[in-house]
Amino acid sequence: MRVANFNGGPAALPLPVLEEAARDMLNWRGTGMSVMENSHRAKDVIKMAEEAEADLISLLGLNEDWAVIFCQGGASLQFAMVALNFAGPGGHCDYINTGMWATKAFQEAKVCGANPRLAATSEPEDFTRIPEVFDFNPEAKYVHITSNNTVRGTQWKNFPSPPAPLFSDMSSDFLSRPIEMDKFSLIYAGAQKNIGPAGVTVVVLRRSLADRARQGAPSLLSYPTYVKEQSMYNTPPVWAIYIAGLTFKWLKKDMGGLGAMADRNRVKAETLYQALDQSGGFYRGTAQPASRSHMNVTFLMPSPELTERFKKEALAAGLDGLGGHRSVGGLRASLYNATTLDDVNKLIEFMREFQRVNG
Amino acid sequence: MRVANFNGGPAALPLPVLEEAARDMLNWRGTGMSVMENSHRAKDVIKMAEEAEADLISLLGLNEDWAVIFCQGGASLQFAMVALNFAGPGGHCDYINTGMWATKAFQEAKVCGANPRLAATSEPEDFTRIPEVFDFNPEAKYVHITSNNTVRGTQWKNFPSPPAPLFSDMSSDFLSRPIEMDKFSLIYAGAQKNIGPAGVTVVVLRRSLADRARQGAPSLLSYPTYVKEQSMYNTPPVWAIYIAGLTFKWLKKDMGGLGAMADRNRVKAETLYQALDQSGGFYRGTAQPASRSHMNVTFLMPSPELTERFKKEALAAGLDGLGGHRSVGGLRASLYNATTLDDVNKLIEFMREFQRVNG
Repeated sequence: MRVANFNGGPAALPLPVLEEAARDMLNWRGTGMSVMENSHRAKDVIKMAEEAEADLISLLGLNEDWAVIFCQGGASLQFAMVALNFAGPGGHCDYINTGMWATKAFQEAKVCGANPRLAATSEPEDFTRIPEVFDFNPEAKYVHITSNNTVRGTQWKNFPSPPAPLFSDMSSDFLSRPIEMDKFSLIYAGAQKNIGPAGVTVVVLRRSLADRARQGAPSLLSYPTYVKEQSMYNTPPVWAIYIAGLTFKWLKKDMGGLGAMADRNRVKAETLYQALDQSGGFYRGTAQPASRSHMNVTFLMPSPELTERFKKEALAAGLDGLGGHRSVGGLRASLYNATTLDDVNKLIEFMREFQRVNG
Repeated sequence: MRVANFNGGPAALPLPVLEEAARDMLNWRGTGMSVMENSHRAKDVIKMAEEAEADLISLLGLNEDWAVIFCQGGASLQFAMVALNFAGPGGHCDYINTGMWATKAFQEAKVCGANPRLAATSEPEDFTRIPEVFDFNPEAKYVHITSNNTVRGTQWKNFPSPPAPLFSDMSSDFLSRPIEMDKFSLIYAGAQKNIGPAGVTVVVLRRSLADRARQGAPSLLSYPTYVKEQSMYNTPPVWAIYIAGLTFKWLKKDMGGLGAMADRNRVKAETLYQALDQSGGFYRGTAQPASRSHMNVTFLMPSPELTERFKKEALAAGLDGLGGHRSVGGLRASLYNATTLDDVNKLIEFMREFQRVNG
């Protein structure tokens, strides 16, 4: 009945999280109503949001220098917020371009009146790898990277150490591995990969950075609003925070935290990359090996016809979400936290049989 | 097990909506996954969002002059968006101040650099009524009102006809009654009263107005972005739209549309106001009778001690959410669409017994 879900995002959620959410739909925590029907100022909802925040702080090993906030609008709203809060009109900021979302972040900084510049780009190599040489602007207020590139299947393994505060869009690999927080000043992630449902964005930022935010941005685009009001300046997306909170608990208790999660994710990804590499070129990975993502395995087949047949037959076999991003085509297996090694093995079995018949 | 839910928002949702959402949590529309785990580009999700839009268009009786879009950030983000899109730096705009949320809308226009002005305010009368005399600025780009005031329990019965396009925050009475759309150019509503869960905001605006929006706002604060991309510029809050869509269907089929819904809401409100008025002053409504809201019935008791006891004993009797807004205190019974006449009758029965014992 349940399929193996390889969606790029929104993506698979942990089964125990869904089961608990369904079970508690009519009467959450004994309140006699759904979590969605509770006031966001009700003590149970405040406690739930505080637990979510505390579990995230514990997962990331954060100290009191950091604030965790919940925003709306996805990573795309963060593209605007970082520029408005920390660059401002004409303000210099550096971007490293590693693909479609990194490009969008760069462009949105322009829309917001900042003066972004590329400190590196892998566009000439069709975004098949993560750059290793950077030309940082000493006047930049921050440097922005994209830790994992869902469309191109690349992922940063070693983060840079620029002169300015380092910001990262981590939407597609947040909570998939431990993060060296020392290197960063601000990270953010739309929920719909490893956190929960679309509709909430987690932002982790240094309190000292928030204190230096520029004034004049709309209230809901101003980081200090969220830090000061503990993400309750107005009604937050309670359901999305609730599901995120259940996912944080699952990650801590059932999965054993980020280190253990990273081990599982590495095994899943390496197993699948090995299957690609051993297919004699029938399945060809698109990312350069040193930059391969553990979250999104992107690959091509010998022809568009075979690609279409593959997707169709995979779906019939209960393997869903394997189409590449509409901007690049091909195939993509996204292996977020809630995707299992068992799912990966089913996929590999299907791939081998498909190659035997069509190869 | 389920309580009678008088929350001011987030608030009661229709029971059949919650039951369907729970039932379909692990396998929505035969996709083998939750609606939250489906890609927002999947055909089933696009169909679901299109159905939600079509049902809303049908409920409101809109023609093709209108666009329906789904945003995030609640009404508070709309406060910024209307100012950025339609007033701009130094741009004149008129506001009618009828309470806390209207005040916030006015202030946010200032934050966004516009030049808002009050065309009327009931603040000198402690916001106990809706103004009837207006001083419109002929240079204003728009006039902004708040159709229902959750904190003060007042509601517009006859909308004004200003020289500029009329905008309304309808967060707390949208879909509670038919709307004379001819009078408006843009209306918006955070979902967490009559639409669905917090996390999505419905905006209905004239396409000709969207075409005249100013450029330069962040992409996600620009109405044309949503109109052009049919609310899928980036990943929308799929779950919130899904629940909203189920609620629209319930409203159309189970409730019989906005006219029938308005009749039910009037009966609920009048029944409760009558109980207040017949209590010999023990329960005192705070809004002036001609401005009384059918959504939020605000009232006071003889002392703060009795108010606290009332809330506590009501909760024990399965009547939840009766505290007034934290900014004004007192009591408030919110009677949104999913609250039933049966809930109201239970409340009145409790009120009479409470008065008998404590009056």
